[in-house]
Amino acid sequence: MTSERECINRILHYVESHDREYLIKGIGDDCAVLKKDGENCLLLTTDTLVEGVHFDLAWHPPYLLGRKCASVNLSDIAAMGGQPRTCLLSVAFPGSVPSWFDDFMSGFTSVLNEHDTLLVGGDTVKSQNDLILSVTVTGEGDRGQICFRSGAKSGDLIWVSGSLGNAAAGLGLCRSGQCQSAEMSGKWQHLIEAHLDPEAQIDLGRILSSSGFVHAMMDISDGLATDLAHLCQESDVGAEIQQDLLPLSTFLEHAATELDAEVLDWVLKGGEDYQLLFTTRASDEQNLLQLVSEKFGREIFCIGRIVEEQGVFLCNGGERREIAYQGYDHFVGK
Amino acid sequence: MTSERECINRILHYVESHDREYLIKGIGDDCAVLKKDGENCLLLTTDTLVEGVHFDLAWHPPYLLGRKCASVNLSDIAAMGGQPRTCLLSVAFPGSVPSWFDDFMSGFTSVLNEHDTLLVGGDTVKSQNDLILSVTVTGEGDRGQICFRSGAKSGDLIWVSGSLGNAAAGLGLCRSGQCQSAEMSGKWQHLIEAHLDPEAQIDLGRILSSSGFVHAMMDISDGLATDLAHLCQESDVGAEIQQDLLPLSTFLEHAATELDAEVLDWVLKGGEDYQLLFTTRASDEQNLLQLVSEKFGREIFCIGRIVEEQGVFLCNGGERREIAYQGYDHFVGK
Repeated sequence: MTSERECINRILHYVESHDREYLIKGIGDDCAVLKKDGENCLLLTTDTLVEGVHFDLAWHPPYLLGRKCASVNLSDIAAMGGQPRTCLLSVAFPGSVPSWFDDFMSGFTSVLNEHDTLLVGGDTVKSQNDLILSVTVTGEGDRGQICFRSGAKSGDLIWVSGSLGNAAAGLGLCRSGQCQSAEMSGKWQHLIEAHLDPEAQIDLGRILSSSGFVHAMMDISDGLATDLAHLCQESDVGAEIQQDLLPLSTFLEHAATELDAEVLDWVLKGGEDYQLLFTTRASDEQNLLQLVSEKFGREIFCIGRIVEEQGVFLCNGGERREIAYQGYDHFVGK
Repeated sequence: MTSERECINRILHYVESHDREYLIKGIGDDCAVLKKDGENCLLLTTDTLVEGVHFDLAWHPPYLLGRKCASVNLSDIAAMGGQPRTCLLSVAFPGSVPSWFDDFMSGFTSVLNEHDTLLVGGDTVKSQNDLILSVTVTGEGDRGQICFRSGAKSGDLIWVSGSLGNAAAGLGLCRSGQCQSAEMSGKWQHLIEAHLDPEAQIDLGRILSSSGFVHAMMDISDGLATDLAHLCQESDVGAEIQQDLLPLSTFLEHAATELDAEVLDWVLKGGEDYQLLFTTRASDEQNLLQLVSEKFGREIFCIGRIVEEQGVFLCNGGERREIAYQGYDHFVGK
């Protein structure tokens, strides 16, 4: 048993069919969804970050690590279109609490404050070797507005909320030492920041969930190919994405050349962009664009269509190829 | 910065005063308490267990480790007098998922099922070295019935729900290799089970919270001395416990002799007993005993009194000495 997917499948084996009036969605989406108060639902999510696996203090400033640790968890609330409310933080340190912990907490709580989210508990323990940060976030959303992964329909347009591949490029630049040079504030800054300090799309998520236009939504944490495959599996559909529609940042191509990497690998398999991925009816396109322009003020990008045929396909000119289930798996690696 | 207490204090420094209508209690009790639906409140707690620090697979059968991992978290819900509802499980493994993970899950979910608690999400990640299990549990309770640490009053009786020191003795026996011999099913069984498979006192917690008799309650996870000190601090009172009233299991003395250990150390500083510690008005003693006898069928034990003078004092015959703040601290050790 080696892959994360297999591990989850083993866990699911022990989860009895949960037929309780207070449970709306258990395992299988960005958050669990529980009934709360009338039409108001409780959202529940947890994520664990391990030093050397999910982050590296050699280049990650503690303040920004704190911000990222909060943002990647809030992103799961954004993915359901919810409002984050409270947070639990568990930290496991080898030996004593490190001197940079104040900077970490300062960054962590800065993101919570930006989204009116309260730190209400947690746990601090000693580990043997690893530094592990585990965060649980609760949120709220109206039952009729919460966006699940499972609502995509054939013919839907597929949208992403921003550029893809930036975080993967930023990670590559950090690994190559570029983030410690003067270039940090130079042409790579935008890419490196996407890795060090990603943004949870809470505001856009709420605009989208309350718009009524969205059929299915999730955040892109494991890479477009893997995450779109999840969304398609949950919705029992397939997807065709158009390569020339994928939104790419300036300098992404330069960074790929610099690092001898492939832009398309970063975009499809990179992960950690924490952009929203969602589908809407094609006929709602203009209304959606107008709404997002008015209420959000930033562009969103249509990258393809939901199709009946199972699988995720990348179209480029006349070519159409199936993209394997090839995103990041936490146990197998790529 | 080396102690868990200091670490928590650093965290508290970054927690702004939380004045939100939906927050009833943040950091500082066994659970965070949030408004849910009318008088119904949401309870929220998380605990992290690290191999080599909180458990040792050399003697902990994976099935029982799974049970303990669930029980220690449910115990925090019991400590508020609540009903557990849902659970998130995060696991961090070095390398691939171990073969014993099925046994672990089987034990983990067996305890959840016993308490009608649903596994609704989690995270599985790869660590570098450590095996870390992080659990979040949600529960429910009526606002007027939830038992906090902060309600103890001078003159209250102090109660515990069962024998103390068993888990510490069991740990000592396991460390000495006694749990792998035929003795496992012999005279030490009760003590070893207290360490390997502690019980969350959910049923008693609910009986107590709905009785209206309880002024303050918590569970004993870090040892009677430390936990009673926490309860006293939160209630702005002190406590006198009578040594001859402390409930001790048969064989505890034998085990102490066998291991050249002190019974009183196990009882006061051992931790992990997961018994409930609570206070009631002295005049409610008989009604409480009758209620618990009728509804629970097991004995509870009065061990002393709440006093005005700050501090936790142990009385033995004519002697009275202050017990230092000397329970288990996760960073300092004892």
